[in-house]
Amino acid sequence: MPTILGQNQYGKAENRVVRITRDGDTHHIKDLNVSVALSGDMDDVHYSGSNANVLPTDTTKNTVYAFAKEYGIDSAEQFGIHLARHFVTSQEPIKVARIRIEEYAWERIATSDGNSKFIGADEVNHSFARKGQELRTTQVTFDGENWEIISGLKDLTVMNSTNSEFWGYVKDKYTTLKEAYDRVLCTDVSAAWRYNWTSDDQRMPNWEKSYEQAKKHMLQAFAETYSLSLQQTLYQMGSRVINSRSEIDEIRFSLPNNHHFLVDLEPFGLKNDNEVYFAADRPYGLIEATVLRDGVEPKIPVDMTNL
Amino acid sequence: MPTILGQNQYGKAENRVVRITRDGDTHHIKDLNVSVALSGDMDDVHYSGSNANVLPTDTTKNTVYAFAKEYGIDSAEQFGIHLARHFVTSQEPIKVARIRIEEYAWERIATSDGNSKFIGADEVNHSFARKGQELRTTQVTFDGENWEIISGLKDLTVMNSTNSEFWGYVKDKYTTLKEAYDRVLCTDVSAAWRYNWTSDDQRMPNWEKSYEQAKKHMLQAFAETYSLSLQQTLYQMGSRVINSRSEIDEIRFSLPNNHHFLVDLEPFGLKNDNEVYFAADRPYGLIEATVLRDGVEPKIPVDMTNL
Amino acid sequence: MPTILGQNQYGKAENRVVRITRDGDTHHIKDLNVSVALSGDMDDVHYSGSNANVLPTDTTKNTVYAFAKEYGIDSAEQFGIHLARHFVTSQEPIKVARIRIEEYAWERIATSDGNSKFIGADEVNHSFARKGQELRTTQVTFDGENWEIISGLKDLTVMNSTNSEFWGYVKDKYTTLKEAYDRVLCTDVSAAWRYNWTSDDQRMPNWEKSYEQAKKHMLQAFAETYSLSLQQTLYQMGSRVINSRSEIDEIRFSLPNNHHFLVDLEPFGLKNDNEVYFAADRPYGLIEATVLRDGVEPKIPVDMTNL
Amino acid sequence: MPTILGQNQYGKAENRVVRITRDGDTHHIKDLNVSVALSGDMDDVHYSGSNANVLPTDTTKNTVYAFAKEYGIDSAEQFGIHLARHFVTSQEPIKVARIRIEEYAWERIATSDGNSKFIGADEVNHSFARKGQELRTTQVTFDGENWEIISGLKDLTVMNSTNSEFWGYVKDKYTTLKEAYDRVLCTDVSAAWRYNWTSDDQRMPNWEKSYEQAKKHMLQAFAETYSLSLQQTLYQMGSRVINSRSEIDEIRFSLPNNHHFLVDLEPFGLKNDNEVYFAADRPYGLIEATVLRDGVEPKIPVDMTNL
Repeated sequence: MPTILGQNQYGKAENRVVRITRDGDTHHIKDLNVSVALSGDMDDVHYSGSNANVLPTDTTKNTVYAFAKEYGIDSAEQFGIHLARHFVTSQEPIKVARIRIEEYAWERIATSDGNSKFIGADEVNHSFARKGQELRTTQVTFDGENWEIISGLKDLTVMNSTNSEFWGYVKDKYTTLKEAYDRVLCTDVSAAWRYNWTSDDQRMPNWEKSYEQAKKHMLQAFAETYSLSLQQTLYQMGSRVINSRSEIDEIRFSLPNNHHFLVDLEPFGLKNDNEVYFAADRPYGLIEATVLRDGVEPKIPVDMTNL
Repeated sequence: MPTILGQNQYGKAENRVVRITRDGDTHHIKDLNVSVALSGDMDDVHYSGSNANVLPTDTTKNTVYAFAKEYGIDSAEQFGIHLARHFVTSQEPIKVARIRIEEYAWERIATSDGNSKFIGADEVNHSFARKGQELRTTQVTFDGENWEIISGLKDLTVMNSTNSEFWGYVKDKYTTLKEAYDRVLCTDVSAAWRYNWTSDDQRMPNWEKSYEQAKKHMLQAFAETYSLSLQQTLYQMGSRVINSRSEIDEIRFSLPNNHHFLVDLEPFGLKNDNEVYFAADRPYGLIEATVLRDGVEPKIPVDMTNL
Repeated sequence: MPTILGQNQYGKAENRVVRITRDGDTHHIKDLNVSVALSGDMDDVHYSGSNANVLPTDTTKNTVYAFAKEYGIDSAEQFGIHLARHFVTSQEPIKVARIRIEEYAWERIATSDGNSKFIGADEVNHSFARKGQELRTTQVTFDGENWEIISGLKDLTVMNSTNSEFWGYVKDKYTTLKEAYDRVLCTDVSAAWRYNWTSDDQRMPNWEKSYEQAKKHMLQAFAETYSLSLQQTLYQMGSRVINSRSEIDEIRFSLPNNHHFLVDLEPFGLKNDNEVYFAADRPYGLIEATVLRDGVEPKIPVDMTNL
Repeated sequence: MPTILGQNQYGKAENRVVRITRDGDTHHIKDLNVSVALSGDMDDVHYSGSNANVLPTDTTKNTVYAFAKEYGIDSAEQFGIHLARHFVTSQEPIKVARIRIEEYAWERIATSDGNSKFIGADEVNHSFARKGQELRTTQVTFDGENWEIISGLKDLTVMNSTNSEFWGYVKDKYTTLKEAYDRVLCTDVSAAWRYNWTSDDQRMPNWEKSYEQAKKHMLQAFAETYSLSLQQTLYQMGSRVINSRSEIDEIRFSLPNNHHFLVDLEPFGLKNDNEVYFAADRPYGLIEATVLRDGVEPKIPVDMTNL
């Protein structure tokens, strides 16, 4: 046979599951988008179409919903761990399971503000508004022995309206850019960080707290860095997370430079004193890098966070 | 001539303007997407291509940026009023100006949390994260005499995890739906409300406060209504806004019913006690209606809020 | 009651239906996205939540699929007519039905090219690739007596690489644009045209042929017009359709001016002889107008084709 | 320093360039979206913010437009090769350049159909409609010595309305799927193939012809395969490309299974004889695999084609 099969995986992608937990009248919700990818002894289904080793993608979907009942959803990471372990340990042909999850955050709608003259206006504990800010992500991979957990976030748009410069760069025959000593710095943060938890023998991190703290440190580093380049800001963000969170060994960012161009108002007899900007769509600078704890081996793929 | 020209309008759409205001070290930002549509004596440009009455769309763009400097941006509504007045009063052929604006909200990044061991960690007042929840909208129309201001919001996703029923409906030969006595109610609120401020002689509403209060009342009505149909919830939301805000006479909603289907877990020997839901994409119910102060004439177009 | 209900409608939106017809081994497909909106005696469901007059949106969905079987899908328009008539005539409280349909076009995959050395390579008549060009649309409205059919298309991107000028326009203090004597003209055509078929007593147009011809005339008018403004091109496109198709009385366009800016290559010692363009995203000019057969009353809403 | 920098790259993403070539009155257009990513000696800009080794992303943008003039755009691949070679050979700190390009295809608008009674109606050779079907892609990588060219396409939606089955699969306690002996098979093809051209010493492939042939073979294999699983179809598509095109050594696919569910019409007294389908959005099966010429080493990253 002149051609052969290489890496392959399959499963049901984008299973949207909402899990409600009731604590008396107080409800809690978890809202996930779960994608399953399985690999193993799958030559036959590719070569001949025999499905003898194939657990249907429909079954992987059913499993997501059944596990939401059986185990609940403490965190996206913990839910992914339950699923990945199940597929690898229950199906002999399946050697590796990779579970990707996106999580939408919700906040409670405030009702008992004292101003409400319309009804008894007791506090309502089953009403939520979607936060709409960043999308939380995780990727859980299990090969029957070791775990790899890469969590992160997407689409967290941040802006510094000052404390950013850009000068001293290389100039070639195609360079026309003027140096900037006070510019707006704006980006949509995509980040993926790898936990050093890899085995059931280790103590598991507190996934919820770890996420919240990693996000906080990134935001603070972004705000507090006086920036000479977006690369420098990126490195500060990554390094702050790793230095603050011992459970995280590696972090990769993909940061578009959402250009805000100072509008030339001189033709209209006006001076633009860093006040009025045009927010451009395309093209945009794109800065991508991994920051690592010294001594560890990088494992987050270059293309994972790529736009 | 066997064909004639009907309603027409033109202008530059989606001008992205970011306005920064400095109050010492404390910066404030307004982030808008402004679309200009002008109409008037425009027969010639359609019939013969003569641009003698046409102010270029490029000029309308420049005007947006120049006005951001000259007038600042107190609110989307006030900014639209400056623009609309300018086009109608400064260009004789232009009879009506319609300014549509979308506004993105930002919040400050908290830095001085006391935990920050990395730098002096004074409060940083020029760093922002985009809120990402609803998009605020306004449409300002001016014909040289009267104003029409229709403001609103889009993509505000809300959910009640209980206190919603649906039963007692018509059943025909194509009806298979089972009645529901406890269901999830989830929607993406699109709303547009019309102010009764129409003339420069009237006292202008406080646009920022009015927006904030209209949103609050909608959310509270959504949360506090025990719902027998999404139509009932819609009416409560609209009626609450109009009864609470005397400056608003009419409101129109477009509310998709984002179905959350209870997953049948019985085949797996599990009982789904209103815990595990599949969040569906399409199709979705779509409920649209106007709520009016009694006695006023409806003016918000049906297709304005249509999906 | 200080508030009252205004215009309202409800139904199931975006029912994705694919209908396959078999003519021996030769299959034909129709691929639609159908949205149902019903209105009538619906006060109670808004005021009190009583669903006694409400045919569930789930039932309207079922009806779409059942009718795809019972009537087949000759054309989007004909299918919408079957549906609208059914809802209005079978449910007493329903006074008006509006059916909106988007249609995706498919083309056959060519197989018997004579080069195929792999299999018997007879022609395969059940394989299709989605065309991906424009989206075909229709809106069918029935009030029990009269029909209104507004058909159209969206997202048909066209470009003239020459024969477009723009000069002789108004200049005010905010005008900086330079006149252009040879520019690229590029737009995404959104068009909606109204048929003068309004009653079952009239002979029904051939919807498929009418669509194909209307599209052809628009494209030819776009290509053949030497343009002094996008408004002039728009008028030529509309007028060509109405003059060529007696079944169409009115057409409305929304045409973004997808700016292609000539890149300034002089800093690099190069001359840009109308060769290299930057295709911009935002902002864009937006030109909207209705073209009518002389003597008819305009009925297509301004906001129907609005971006 | 407890943290270090890992893999990093930067550049200007999504430069939209349109290149027009004139052959008398006949114009030709190439419409690309070009993203530049450079890597090399970039430690300082991350650690200290020094831009001494940084060619600005703005310059990489300028280079794209200048090269469109200087070299023209014969093909996306050839254009990427010019760019990548330039960055690596002209800037000492830059060791690797990766150019990603998306190409939009256009077709001529037919005008001289003989029916046109409106104008002289000579053929117009400067008018185009965007095809809108698949997006053509390429990724060109150069390290100063070797080339890696990975080309492909995205969003090519195809459907077989018969000749697809799915049965004989594993059944566990979460399996409820019924076996199917005649189903619709529909997918959006994402494919990336690697050329074995790696050195300037080799004869360069004809990139345009190679693309056209690779696409043709994929489509034919999709149409002509009697499918027992989407994996089998994928393998046939890949193997057909590699066996037909000696310049291609490896191909990777990401194929969503766009489920078309047969609608149950029995409650309405109707029989659905494989005629009426519901086209679902989410979840979807996702089948991904690499097909290789026997003996070659796989190099296309798993995450490159991932959805």
